Amino acid sequence: MPVSNVEWSVTEKEIVQAAFERAYQREIAALIQEVRERASSLEALEDMWRLHDFLSARRHEIDGKYDQQDAGLIFVSSRLVKEGWLHLNELEGLAVDKLTKVAAMTRM
Amino acid sequence: MPVSNVEWSVTEKEIVQAAFERAYQREIAALIQEVRERASSLEALEDMWRLHDFLSARRHEIDGKYDQQDAGLIFVSSRLVKEGWLHLNELEGLAVDKLTKVAAMTRM
Repeated sequence: MPVSNVEWSVTEKEIVQAAFERAYQREIAALIQEVRERASSLEALEDMWRLHDFLSARRHEIDGKYDQQDAGLIFVSSRLVKEGWLHLNELEGLAVDKLTKVAAMTRM
Repeated sequence: MPVSNVEWSVTEKEIVQAAFERAYQREIAALIQEVRERASSLEALEDMWRLHDFLSARRHEIDGKYDQQDAGLIFVSSRLVKEGWLHLNELEGLAVDKLTKVAAMTRM
């Protein structure tokens, strides 16, 4: 199942970009909520450095995750669906073969 | 005013260690409070990465700050006094020449 040399139409790219943007906003909102909760229960220095480690890891992850190069769109889409930030039906309008690939990868 | 080749008695070392420990606890408590406040007002992703940068800087600073090698005790003491984490009178019991050096450096 080759996923990295798929052709994307302008409309499909717009659908994916809009979907990524929604997923991104959801993920950021959840992250802000989690950081607020972790911070409100800070008691000791170790808690604070754990919060720091958590932020370091999430920052690194998010910086690299929403890559919009054509070769990665199927991977990123399936990852976002799998993580719960995106619903498959928000990708409606993509060619059926692409949707099938995304759906198949979310079950792996 | 040479400060790095000063001799320290066992009693003086104990006084300094106890003073550093108190300063450390104060600084950590203030830092935890500040992180809680910053986290409670998180609104956007940039706020979160600013919190991350702040924690990175503070962690690096605190990791290196409470050095207990003899050569640095005067420097560390005066820095802690200058930053408000330690009161000069908490160093009572040190030889007068050391107290004079610490006091002089806090005015620089």
